[in-house]
Amino acid sequence: MKVAKFGGTSVASAEQIKKVAAIVAEDKERKIIVVSAPGKRNSEDTKVTDLLINLGETVLQGKEAEEELQKVVKRYEDIADGLGLGKDIIATIEADLRKRLEFDLNRPDTFMDLMKASGEDNNAKLIAAYFQQIGLNATYLNPQDAGLYVSDQPGNAQVLPEAYEHLVKLRQTDQIIVFPGFFGYSKEGTLVTFSRGGSDITGSILAAGIKADLYENFTDVDSVFAANPKIIDNPVKIKKMTYREMRELSYAGFSVFHDEALFPAFRNDIPVCVKNTNNPSSSGTMIIAEREYFLNPVIGIAADEGFATIYVRKYLMNREVGFGRKLLQILEDEGLSYEHMPSGIDDTSVILRQDQLTSAIEERIVTRISNELAVDDVYVERDFAMVMIVGEGMHNTIGISSRATAALTRANVNIEMINQGSSEVSLILGIHASDADRTVRELYQEFFGGADDTVQ
Amino acid sequence: MKVAKFGGTSVASAEQIKKVAAIVAEDKERKIIVVSAPGKRNSEDTKVTDLLINLGETVLQGKEAEEELQKVVKRYEDIADGLGLGKDIIATIEADLRKRLEFDLNRPDTFMDLMKASGEDNNAKLIAAYFQQIGLNATYLNPQDAGLYVSDQPGNAQVLPEAYEHLVKLRQTDQIIVFPGFFGYSKEGTLVTFSRGGSDITGSILAAGIKADLYENFTDVDSVFAANPKIIDNPVKIKKMTYREMRELSYAGFSVFHDEALFPAFRNDIPVCVKNTNNPSSSGTMIIAEREYFLNPVIGIAADEGFATIYVRKYLMNREVGFGRKLLQILEDEGLSYEHMPSGIDDTSVILRQDQLTSAIEERIVTRISNELAVDDVYVERDFAMVMIVGEGMHNTIGISSRATAALTRANVNIEMINQGSSEVSLILGIHASDADRTVRELYQEFFGGADDTVQ
Repeated sequence: MKVAKFGGTSVASAEQIKKVAAIVAEDKERKIIVVSAPGKRNSEDTKVTDLLINLGETVLQGKEAEEELQKVVKRYEDIADGLGLGKDIIATIEADLRKRLEFDLNRPDTFMDLMKASGEDNNAKLIAAYFQQIGLNATYLNPQDAGLYVSDQPGNAQVLPEAYEHLVKLRQTDQIIVFPGFFGYSKEGTLVTFSRGGSDITGSILAAGIKADLYENFTDVDSVFAANPKIIDNPVKIKKMTYREMRELSYAGFSVFHDEALFPAFRNDIPVCVKNTNNPSSSGTMIIAEREYFLNPVIGIAADEGFATIYVRKYLMNREVGFGRKLLQILEDEGLSYEHMPSGIDDTSVILRQDQLTSAIEERIVTRISNELAVDDVYVERDFAMVMIVGEGMHNTIGISSRATAALTRANVNIEMINQGSSEVSLILGIHASDADRTVRELYQEFFGGADDTVQ
Repeated sequence: MKVAKFGGTSVASAEQIKKVAAIVAEDKERKIIVVSAPGKRNSEDTKVTDLLINLGETVLQGKEAEEELQKVVKRYEDIADGLGLGKDIIATIEADLRKRLEFDLNRPDTFMDLMKASGEDNNAKLIAAYFQQIGLNATYLNPQDAGLYVSDQPGNAQVLPEAYEHLVKLRQTDQIIVFPGFFGYSKEGTLVTFSRGGSDITGSILAAGIKADLYENFTDVDSVFAANPKIIDNPVKIKKMTYREMRELSYAGFSVFHDEALFPAFRNDIPVCVKNTNNPSSSGTMIIAEREYFLNPVIGIAADEGFATIYVRKYLMNREVGFGRKLLQILEDEGLSYEHMPSGIDDTSVILRQDQLTSAIEERIVTRISNELAVDDVYVERDFAMVMIVGEGMHNTIGISSRATAALTRANVNIEMINQGSSEVSLILGIHASDADRTVRELYQEFFGGADDTVQ
């Protein structure tokens, strides 16, 4: 039994939904189909989710919103027309939207969750109707009826453990279930959305819940690439990678999955396959628990910008029990999460994402560190990039760090930070953001320069 | 005005003390002479300090200790005879020792401090007497009379800020002051010793107190070497290095100075010179605030063993505000200090000196981390070594880390950890302890292989 999730561009138009239907019809194991809201049909298009946010915000501002409502309805109408569906489904969708607009505006977060989630919900109804029309034994299933219970945190729902007790019953289905992504319900019956990448999370939860043999994630690329195609021309395709590799790469700018999305699948050891709706015969990228890494110790190279460093120096720091803990407490008091904390003997740096660090927060932190920790020096530097070299073979292959640092020397890049030794699957290099693209290119050349177009 | 400190081997015998006198007589600026207790005269010898510890412990155990006392007196007697001093000084020393033995045995820590410190104190009296005999205008000065006030922590005295107000008056001396190292007095008049390297600390405090032009530290080597002579044959001599370089190297197994010893000199910008009592014409090693590093970005390579790693893995760790702080709190609750904390995305390691980590502590920590932090995995590995490559040019010289990691690849050493980025003057490589010597040799070859015998 497989869970297949189709992303926004895979369900953006009638033409795309026909491809989805063909993919579903082709394999009887594809029983649970998770769908996103209609995405962009071309680069100038607007996603239905964005139309819905616009609609919801207009209503919250107390303005007339009929025009915004009709834009949403029109998108579904275009799809229904293209699929040769009757007018009933559009009437259902419009009625559903009007009902949602009557929700209590004094609960704006929940109201916005309700509006946004309608994108997936109504698209699932529409797609189920189309599947039925072409003769598939399919049905729409609402997350509440399926028992997909989540915590009541608008925009950041966390699945409740008991949800899995309900979801496992879906294994018994003899129908194809079309399931809207992106949201669940609290125990009190309130609709709550997941964070970014929410439809991927739904698919991952369902795959874990029904103990799927495979979680297929259909998107618009043939596979995951070893580097960002915007920086490297035709980067090699990854055929097989581990969860850990995927997770480290998605952290550092690989946008295939939001970092939370794979968690339920990973915890339940469900293999994940990234495939292309527009080219389903391509084998895609398999994400699994373990892989042989002898031939390919390195699987990918990623870079992410926007990091700041808080540098702290104090003579005899390393003999002071509690220094690091107190330093992190000051950051925690400001609600800051940090990424790395490299340390010398008398100095330590805390590296964090700089969007958290407003000038007011920076000033408070620097003052507190200076006063409470009696340091010799403390300052903040911004605009660093973290470059990650990721691969299961990193830890056990002698010479990876040597090749990486030699590549940076060739590219004339000064290494501000090296962090290796905790993660067994990555080497992290801190550099100035302005050096990031050059660094990725040189590292790609070093580790993939002579490769075929596929690694596994 | 200079402060000159002479270590244990420099004042171990009459012959050595004659060399000291010649050195002092040669330069009128050498006004404050800090002396250790008599050290070993050869590799089978016993230091006076160890004889005193033996004496003190015997008395604390309530045993007859005349024989132990006489062993101490005999060492001074040998020296006095060799210097042609009369019997008066030995009578003074023996009376002093007998008086100390009458101290309240219910305060064993303070009693032991009193006994140990007599080694330096009586040697200072003896050396002052010799200086006078050969016509130097010299006098013994007791730390209490000089106002060297310290905190009342037996074996770990910290200098009190007001001590400097008293010590500065020593600038007015027209005599050569012979000052015993290793101890000061609390405000209440209790003798308290410094931690390891205590005579170096005394010299450093005095140099800071009198705002010396130079703090000369006389020992039994010509200079600080770029690597451990037990591992590298004839390593190059360091002519000039900065405080920061000295501090990082002494952390990682360079035993020239205890890490606290240079602090007062460093804070007051007093240059320090390491010289050889047995070869005073050799220029030694100057330790200063800044140096040109263009030609020699790397100044030394050191390794230290005995490190353990606590490895912790938890999916989505990096999104959990407070995780690192809580982890360090658990260590702090056990009184553990840590050295480094490299982190990946979902994992972090804490590296600490393993002698702190008894199996009982290890078990408690692992259990708490497991239960309180709900981690996916936690385990401890032992027997790592930290290798440090130190130099002021580390941070601004492209290619150092590349050369270092390439050297380890050649030596077929797996790098367990790389820590660069906080300290501007060091790169730290974590490896298995069994690889340490091979690593130091290969790194030495890489950075000093073609050097003359002196770097600056």
